[in-house]
Amino acid sequence: MTKEEALLFLKEKRKTMNVLNSVISMVYWDMEVVAPIESIEHWGEILGYLSAQYHQLTTDTRIEEALEVLAVSIQELDQYEKRLVEIFSDLYQQNKKIPESLKRDLSMAIAVGKKYWKKAKEAGDYEIFKPHLKRIIDLLQQQAEFVGYQGHIYNALLDDYEKGMTVEVLDGVFATLKVGLLNLLEEVMNDKHLVMDPPKGPFPKEMQEELIYFMLDKMGYRFREAGRVDEVEHPFTISLGPKDVRVTTHYYEDTIESALFSSMHEGGHAIYEQNMPHEQAEYGINVAPSTGIHESQSRFYENIIGRSYSCWHAFYKDLQKIIPAYQGVSLEEFYQMVNDVVPSLIRTEADEVTYSLHIIIRYEIEKLMISGEIGVDEIPALWNEKYKEYLGVEPKNDSEGVLQDVHWADGMIGYFPSYALGNLYGAQFYHQMKKDIPDVMETVAAGDLSVVFNWLKENVHSHGNLYKPGELVEYVTGEPLNPNYYLDYLREKYLNRKPAITMRIAKG
Amino acid sequence: MTKEEALLFLKEKRKTMNVLNSVISMVYWDMEVVAPIESIEHWGEILGYLSAQYHQLTTDTRIEEALEVLAVSIQELDQYEKRLVEIFSDLYQQNKKIPESLKRDLSMAIAVGKKYWKKAKEAGDYEIFKPHLKRIIDLLQQQAEFVGYQGHIYNALLDDYEKGMTVEVLDGVFATLKVGLLNLLEEVMNDKHLVMDPPKGPFPKEMQEELIYFMLDKMGYRFREAGRVDEVEHPFTISLGPKDVRVTTHYYEDTIESALFSSMHEGGHAIYEQNMPHEQAEYGINVAPSTGIHESQSRFYENIIGRSYSCWHAFYKDLQKIIPAYQGVSLEEFYQMVNDVVPSLIRTEADEVTYSLHIIIRYEIEKLMISGEIGVDEIPALWNEKYKEYLGVEPKNDSEGVLQDVHWADGMIGYFPSYALGNLYGAQFYHQMKKDIPDVMETVAAGDLSVVFNWLKENVHSHGNLYKPGELVEYVTGEPLNPNYYLDYLREKYLNRKPAITMRIAKG
Repeated sequence: MTKEEALLFLKEKRKTMNVLNSVISMVYWDMEVVAPIESIEHWGEILGYLSAQYHQLTTDTRIEEALEVLAVSIQELDQYEKRLVEIFSDLYQQNKKIPESLKRDLSMAIAVGKKYWKKAKEAGDYEIFKPHLKRIIDLLQQQAEFVGYQGHIYNALLDDYEKGMTVEVLDGVFATLKVGLLNLLEEVMNDKHLVMDPPKGPFPKEMQEELIYFMLDKMGYRFREAGRVDEVEHPFTISLGPKDVRVTTHYYEDTIESALFSSMHEGGHAIYEQNMPHEQAEYGINVAPSTGIHESQSRFYENIIGRSYSCWHAFYKDLQKIIPAYQGVSLEEFYQMVNDVVPSLIRTEADEVTYSLHIIIRYEIEKLMISGEIGVDEIPALWNEKYKEYLGVEPKNDSEGVLQDVHWADGMIGYFPSYALGNLYGAQFYHQMKKDIPDVMETVAAGDLSVVFNWLKENVHSHGNLYKPGELVEYVTGEPLNPNYYLDYLREKYLNRKPAITMRIAKG
Repeated sequence: MTKEEALLFLKEKRKTMNVLNSVISMVYWDMEVVAPIESIEHWGEILGYLSAQYHQLTTDTRIEEALEVLAVSIQELDQYEKRLVEIFSDLYQQNKKIPESLKRDLSMAIAVGKKYWKKAKEAGDYEIFKPHLKRIIDLLQQQAEFVGYQGHIYNALLDDYEKGMTVEVLDGVFATLKVGLLNLLEEVMNDKHLVMDPPKGPFPKEMQEELIYFMLDKMGYRFREAGRVDEVEHPFTISLGPKDVRVTTHYYEDTIESALFSSMHEGGHAIYEQNMPHEQAEYGINVAPSTGIHESQSRFYENIIGRSYSCWHAFYKDLQKIIPAYQGVSLEEFYQMVNDVVPSLIRTEADEVTYSLHIIIRYEIEKLMISGEIGVDEIPALWNEKYKEYLGVEPKNDSEGVLQDVHWADGMIGYFPSYALGNLYGAQFYHQMKKDIPDVMETVAAGDLSVVFNWLKENVHSHGNLYKPGELVEYVTGEPLNPNYYLDYLREKYLNRKPAITMRIAKG
């Protein structure tokens, strides 16, 4: 194989992987959104077949051959070619190191684990899930040993979601974040004003749909020509191809906030996917560098934009027109409502101030459970203890405590940090954005989100996976990940006596 | 390879083909029903990739090896195994005989041909399409020569849609049918009473949906748990898997008849697919033996049931409840409306009496054009001449004449006979059904369609592709295809002075 042949081979391989990814994504979307209930098993088997096909593609021994050829002339390669080689090396090494039997065992343990997690959650009884969690932890520990790691064993897991991130770095980042958030939370709670209750509805689905389409249009998500919006139980975004990025949402009759903010969140993901460097798809860089970076974009639109005073200064009149029940609620009251800080038990319902504390709790527990420092028997008590300590709340049962998230049952230990990292990356990007465009929020307040769209596209989206997450943050902002930008953003928003804040109204 | 290994090999191969078929069907459905407009090209490429994968599966040289092993011990195989061998032989021979270059040329000619057919139809100008039709005919002639045939060259094309059917048989069948239909048409037209105009609407989509769901439920199509009903421009039915059979329909605001009868038509296809012998899918028999047999089931539900007096004796009150505008139309008037006989130019709008004449015209022309007896220059005039002769109508332009159907542009010369055969097979099955269950239409009139469903399931659906079309007809009815059953059915319905017929009302 010559250097040119090796490059061509890898690019063709990547194109085939992209095709298979599109198909797998379509099956996934169909199963979640439209497939009839009795066909789910059939499609599960088909997903299994397609995943095996995909796996076969990535374990082709000619990849190793091509990588060896290219290793010799790595200095002659351009930036894209180097990244192509790097991504394939990671993938191939990963696939090669983990024995097939372990992968099968893990798939099986997850399939069973999810079933029992569901039962356990319904029954509010951790004991039902416990042996399955133990099995999953055991297998992930084995996997980590096969893959290898430096430092903490958790690094092997973390690397799956945030390439290059380590416990050594994250411990420092989260330490700063935790202290900062706990202090801020105390200050906010001490100065807590009562917030008006939101209108109760009912808000018909069609009405909410109109609002969501309006905001997604403003954001620049091209859902009409190159995407879709459908309703599902648990919203998600999925890219089926460069011009087919679909979001989902869920409408609740009694509140507009859930669908509105979750749609802006998913819209953030979708815009990112639409703005990827699709013309360089053959280099495998038309994806996000990490789940954390992806999350930074969804949270950017959900929170930094979607829960900003500027955004609703521009669009609140439109919202009131679409949702007449809000005509009795002033802009300031609305702003307070959607930014209310309330320490709670459930991560997915948490506000901007407390959200990352939910993550830090999970991170601290995950490290201990994967290193074997605590056993599965000790997890619920530790969970409840930490919730009491950091958030001052106590789960009444395991369903609203340790069983609330599906991630562990899904084998996704090491994923949670990405959510908090999304907040941090987002705020650091935001800081840079304001440096580049000082009046950005004035433009937003004037109803123009295209400045935000274009800045994110140019600085973040269009790079795809060309840089690792840490590299991207440095490339865009000129410095490594720094949690203080997020803390500054929160302090500015939640403590400063800005108009929106000072106008909090006392209820009752 | 031992006999057991060869059987196992073919069965595993078939299972993989079934998986790929499911995926291809899903992509097709998605493109037609939900995919955003800008993604169509992407999905077209992916369909190309998947079709190539499928083709690779069917040209695996080990198939030949397995077939050779099994040829030796063919007498030891059971019925299913024999059919497995037979189906694979046909497929393999077919694939082997046609050169790759010809397949590619034909795909290309069709892609281009469809584009120009569309342009030509819009412009009403056959000349735009003519060179492309010539190219497609040339390539299909070449294909026929490669595949080989006995007797008429058209047999090679016919065999693709109606395995085992020949010009020699079809000429006889269609001769009887033509004379019978022309005589019947004359009698009906001589005795023609004016039929009341249907209510004009508007009939909102939701209202029509309710009616369609009601009828599909009655028919026994399990669209809620194991299917779907969606709206598209050109309705079709597609099986994505044993428990995922989806139909589509199109609602017109000014008439309920289109959506109602086309949904019952598609529902007939869907019931067939749901009732296939899915547990024997590994033998490749979970499909219809031919497009004609498939069509017999859709037309059975659309016409023999759906346009019967018995059906509406049972359900007309429900229809009137759902579509209030019909409260001023009596059952007898409704029955007349949906069974009005009017010779017309457009095949897809034809009634039961004239429909097969449209097909016979196409069949007669196709034979001449594929044998080279007429050139593409002569087709439009011949078309118009035959319409004048058989139906007494003349196209004003090529759009409503020779350009009306996409089939030729789609390379589907040899397909049209299946539509008429569907009518004939259906009537012959119906004759047998009434012999087995003399009071079947009384049960229908009492609102119970399950007797029909069960008879079709047991006698037709559950055999799948175990028999060739001709064999199935003989197996079910004890005699070969006989067009007189269809003629008898029509004469009985359209000439007998039954209550529904004598009550025709004069208008104006």
